[in-house]
Amino acid sequence: MIIVMSGDATAGDVAHVVERLREIGAEAHVSRGQVRTVIGAVGDRALIQQLPWEAFPGVERAVPVLKPYKFVSRDFQSHDTVVDVGGVPIGGDHFTVIAGPCAVESREQLFSSAAAVHKAGARVLRGDAFKPRTSPYSFQGLGERGLELLAEARTEFGMPFVAEVVDPRDVELLASYADIIRIGTRNMANFTLLAELGRQDKPVMLKRGFTATVEEWLNAAEYIYKEGNHHIILCERGIRTFESQTRNTLDISAVPVVRHLSHLPVLVDPSHSGGRSTLVAPLSLAAVAVRSNGVMIDVHPSPETALVDGAQAILPRDFADLMGEIRAVAAALGVDLV
Amino acid sequence: MIIVMSGDATAGDVAHVVERLREIGAEAHVSRGQVRTVIGAVGDRALIQQLPWEAFPGVERAVPVLKPYKFVSRDFQSHDTVVDVGGVPIGGDHFTVIAGPCAVESREQLFSSAAAVHKAGARVLRGDAFKPRTSPYSFQGLGERGLELLAEARTEFGMPFVAEVVDPRDVELLASYADIIRIGTRNMANFTLLAELGRQDKPVMLKRGFTATVEEWLNAAEYIYKEGNHHIILCERGIRTFESQTRNTLDISAVPVVRHLSHLPVLVDPSHSGGRSTLVAPLSLAAVAVRSNGVMIDVHPSPETALVDGAQAILPRDFADLMGEIRAVAAALGVDLV
Amino acid sequence: MIIVMSGDATAGDVAHVVERLREIGAEAHVSRGQVRTVIGAVGDRALIQQLPWEAFPGVERAVPVLKPYKFVSRDFQSHDTVVDVGGVPIGGDHFTVIAGPCAVESREQLFSSAAAVHKAGARVLRGDAFKPRTSPYSFQGLGERGLELLAEARTEFGMPFVAEVVDPRDVELLASYADIIRIGTRNMANFTLLAELGRQDKPVMLKRGFTATVEEWLNAAEYIYKEGNHHIILCERGIRTFESQTRNTLDISAVPVVRHLSHLPVLVDPSHSGGRSTLVAPLSLAAVAVRSNGVMIDVHPSPETALVDGAQAILPRDFADLMGEIRAVAAALGVDLV
Amino acid sequence: MIIVMSGDATAGDVAHVVERLREIGAEAHVSRGQVRTVIGAVGDRALIQQLPWEAFPGVERAVPVLKPYKFVSRDFQSHDTVVDVGGVPIGGDHFTVIAGPCAVESREQLFSSAAAVHKAGARVLRGDAFKPRTSPYSFQGLGERGLELLAEARTEFGMPFVAEVVDPRDVELLASYADIIRIGTRNMANFTLLAELGRQDKPVMLKRGFTATVEEWLNAAEYIYKEGNHHIILCERGIRTFESQTRNTLDISAVPVVRHLSHLPVLVDPSHSGGRSTLVAPLSLAAVAVRSNGVMIDVHPSPETALVDGAQAILPRDFADLMGEIRAVAAALGVDLV
Repeated sequence: MIIVMSGDATAGDVAHVVERLREIGAEAHVSRGQVRTVIGAVGDRALIQQLPWEAFPGVERAVPVLKPYKFVSRDFQSHDTVVDVGGVPIGGDHFTVIAGPCAVESREQLFSSAAAVHKAGARVLRGDAFKPRTSPYSFQGLGERGLELLAEARTEFGMPFVAEVVDPRDVELLASYADIIRIGTRNMANFTLLAELGRQDKPVMLKRGFTATVEEWLNAAEYIYKEGNHHIILCERGIRTFESQTRNTLDISAVPVVRHLSHLPVLVDPSHSGGRSTLVAPLSLAAVAVRSNGVMIDVHPSPETALVDGAQAILPRDFADLMGEIRAVAAALGVDLV
Repeated sequence: MIIVMSGDATAGDVAHVVERLREIGAEAHVSRGQVRTVIGAVGDRALIQQLPWEAFPGVERAVPVLKPYKFVSRDFQSHDTVVDVGGVPIGGDHFTVIAGPCAVESREQLFSSAAAVHKAGARVLRGDAFKPRTSPYSFQGLGERGLELLAEARTEFGMPFVAEVVDPRDVELLASYADIIRIGTRNMANFTLLAELGRQDKPVMLKRGFTATVEEWLNAAEYIYKEGNHHIILCERGIRTFESQTRNTLDISAVPVVRHLSHLPVLVDPSHSGGRSTLVAPLSLAAVAVRSNGVMIDVHPSPETALVDGAQAILPRDFADLMGEIRAVAAALGVDLV
Repeated sequence: MIIVMSGDATAGDVAHVVERLREIGAEAHVSRGQVRTVIGAVGDRALIQQLPWEAFPGVERAVPVLKPYKFVSRDFQSHDTVVDVGGVPIGGDHFTVIAGPCAVESREQLFSSAAAVHKAGARVLRGDAFKPRTSPYSFQGLGERGLELLAEARTEFGMPFVAEVVDPRDVELLASYADIIRIGTRNMANFTLLAELGRQDKPVMLKRGFTATVEEWLNAAEYIYKEGNHHIILCERGIRTFESQTRNTLDISAVPVVRHLSHLPVLVDPSHSGGRSTLVAPLSLAAVAVRSNGVMIDVHPSPETALVDGAQAILPRDFADLMGEIRAVAAALGVDLV
Repeated sequence: MIIVMSGDATAGDVAHVVERLREIGAEAHVSRGQVRTVIGAVGDRALIQQLPWEAFPGVERAVPVLKPYKFVSRDFQSHDTVVDVGGVPIGGDHFTVIAGPCAVESREQLFSSAAAVHKAGARVLRGDAFKPRTSPYSFQGLGERGLELLAEARTEFGMPFVAEVVDPRDVELLASYADIIRIGTRNMANFTLLAELGRQDKPVMLKRGFTATVEEWLNAAEYIYKEGNHHIILCERGIRTFESQTRNTLDISAVPVVRHLSHLPVLVDPSHSGGRSTLVAPLSLAAVAVRSNGVMIDVHPSPETALVDGAQAILPRDFADLMGEIRAVAAALGVDLV
């Protein structure tokens, strides 16, 4: 931690900070410039970071040197984590395609989508049974019936599936059905839910909060890791900005940034970030080119009738075309398309 | 709903939209301009808003005319809601001061703060027993012991109290102790928690998500209202922007905007928005001047030792000075300081 | 400057940074923690800040300790700057009201507005002759004819006036007419224009770029100051955020932040920030309460017919009412309403 | 234009809007719903869009149906514009690589960079002689001497070059040297400069303002087009968001969005958006995959010594490697790498 004193800080203010650092067993390195005095604090990260330095007299600001997360960082583990999902690898040099409907609406809709994405080459199925919606008047999902249908589709097509959890009381239920449990963007900072998922064994997909910084996202992953579950898959899905042409702004740079800071796999969701079917193909190809670990794509047999997010779903035939282009780009860059 | 067709939409595309509107019992008013055709849809709001119009061929975009929320709007109830909190009114022409420590750390700390804010004129006590923290390594609150201490302080000083809930499984516990249950900024879009709070009777304080639009905030209030609980208090606490001098940017304009759109009371939290003790007084006075319904202020007997958010806490003596200024501005504007 | 080395930086990388610092005459204070080495650089601010430290091998990031601006900071001048505008003071403990039409449209419109704001108590007139517009098809102002009318109104009502400049080639023209030359929000980072205004004598009002941080805003002021013109008035006018209920989000916290960092006066523009007439009164009162140095308000005799920004203009009679409330709040807080 | 009346608008308010529309020769289509009345205005776009509808009594808001820009839209010209730059095509199905130093610092630095990028396959040279800097204490460029060096390099390597203009008084000078004149991100809304560039013949590269929406960016292009210069190249370079791991957030989705809305070519600047050398390769490849029309990359022989933006410059050998990958992805997708 670097503690920058204000221009009018007294010698007593500096001494007071130094003393407090010593009390918690840390060293204080004091540098006096012409305009500002700066104190470098070296010692136990957690102890130092938790003191409210900016509440001390004469302190202008405190700048952390170390990241607040530890286990999910490259400093802690230098090699890539590869998560095994029913035999399908996610992470490392692999690129994995997850596809299916946004929400499970019916057996027919789910199986139609699952058959198509399976045939075109997707390896993991998506489909939600519980949907968090901004309006209380919108469709909220089929509940457990949706999970049963997903489990049936898994057997039928031999694809593991990912589904979202929205209530900590449903974690056990989800864990009994799904291969990957997803935390949606609105729940990324729902620490209760994070901790609950950390205390069970199924892989967790942690979507980035659409208003979360990369550091907050990695802190959220740390919550899960710290509780004991190390099978964590990150998924970038766009952030909120002032631009209104797209639902959110896909932060494509976050992929290399996260891969540099963390050993966890990171996927891209080109459907929810853009919110428009016409953006899915270009953003998916960008996700390959930028060397993410995969994409998760909404595919619906009839987007016009979709109960959730129809505007961003692509048709099965467009998904098949896109898979061809994904294959070509992956081959060109030596990426292992799973 | 206004459905704007794209420049290359065919007559068939227009007919298809019109037909779908008629199927759901809505009228379609078609206006043909030189460059664009526009279809006005009049009928059941919920039915019309839920169809994925932008997935229809030839549709450029769909612009809702009506707000997605209903019960919390001025259209539904034109007079102000005034929430009664143990005899203290919040809403209407009243301005109510809530103060106390951010988190309950100990009996001594809580009582010291409570005694001071009570003496200076605060009418409701704040203090949290459960804290959602971005880092898993930070202090997470005293749990039920914290609620017991708050209840003791209520008896001692005759002030009702507000405390945060972070887990839907704790709603009953909170309801058995607190006078107002608070939903924090990170849980504003935790629909599970919102629905749970809607199904009990205690007043709910709903903080604005720091990345939520005013419309999303009112939608969140609608979740609570719709489940049956109409005692809702909104609290503006700053939004995330690119500015880094303050923790968040207090959206002071949201106060008159919300008071225009909704009948619910709206408070301001000058402590968490700015994140600095020196900003608390000017932002509190701005909250009076802009005619919000009150402020909620962090007061700590020794900010340097605070386990949570010490940098923004003000001292008891500064709170007393501020109360004097709040009184003066309220009197100047004819605001009823409770 | 604090230079944080990455986790895998070598001893050679550290030595290389230290050597480069010595070459430019700076001291290097090296602190070695368990996970990171940090180098504090003490010496000539400009020299140190200009080297691209993050391009050096093994450097993770460089954190400036000192602000990049100097003359406009409180470190350089601790007392408030008070700018004299034709006998009207702006800055210090004064609160000054500027009002008038957004753009000069005709003699009749200008004089009607000027007469009304003068009678109600405004001390400086606003009105623009050159308007930068996002669409090339919008009204761009009357040009020099507008300035002539403003000069006439000055004589008639005894009020100095402020007008915007958009082209560096017009600075001389503006300086020959106006009492304050304004740099609009879109030109805050137009360094050519800033430098030009720094080389003449008339006071300059520098509006905050709606996407500028406080630090960038003060850097822009530094450009003007450094060229020799010290009569600078800052004006907060809202920043771009994700919220769409208001045109921009008034960053009311920026007022106390800037007054802490700088000695320059800072005003608030409640008209352009909110973009709605109904927000002008509450935001103006907030501007008094937060202890800014004044407000600049759009007043139009007939907003429906305004050629620019009609939706935010208030009527003369509403301005008169507002002046009464401004007087009351100023008196309550001991602010000197000029 | 769609004019939405408020819930309490009177019949007189509706009649007043309808009357005003008729006065300007527009048709008014009135739709009365249960809660709101909506008026569709059909007629001359410019006339309708310029009236301040939200200042009319009883009007809640006005929603434009048509874009404010015209000539740069696909509605006006359906085929792609291809700009010829000294024999090098930019636009359509072509992908063009522009590279070179951020700023011209010396003959040696420029020629070293130019030789390397030319050899590796870049077709256009970049290098600036005038730099707009946020701090007045930073290097501002070599001025005309820089342009002379660039012209020499053009002759030596047979590559046209692009250079930035920051002052409307320098447009003629730039036009006499450069093959493409660039408007930087901070000047995107400098309408004076835009108009000046529209009145000369050299191709213009218009960088997106880092705080501009896509619509504002296209409006800025319209300024240039309307004055007579149709050789416009757009360049996406990241927008300001809350994320601080990167200098700006590259809005990769803006590429397909702009190509859908406009016929103009759109490039990507992976250097200035990320602000870090390690992000240049992944973002460049994403730019190919997303089917932009090219990239503009900072290459410096010795980033540590760069006077401007050294942290983002890549070395000549890394540029050569990147060109190999760009070629592979372009080939995989059938993109014509120029």
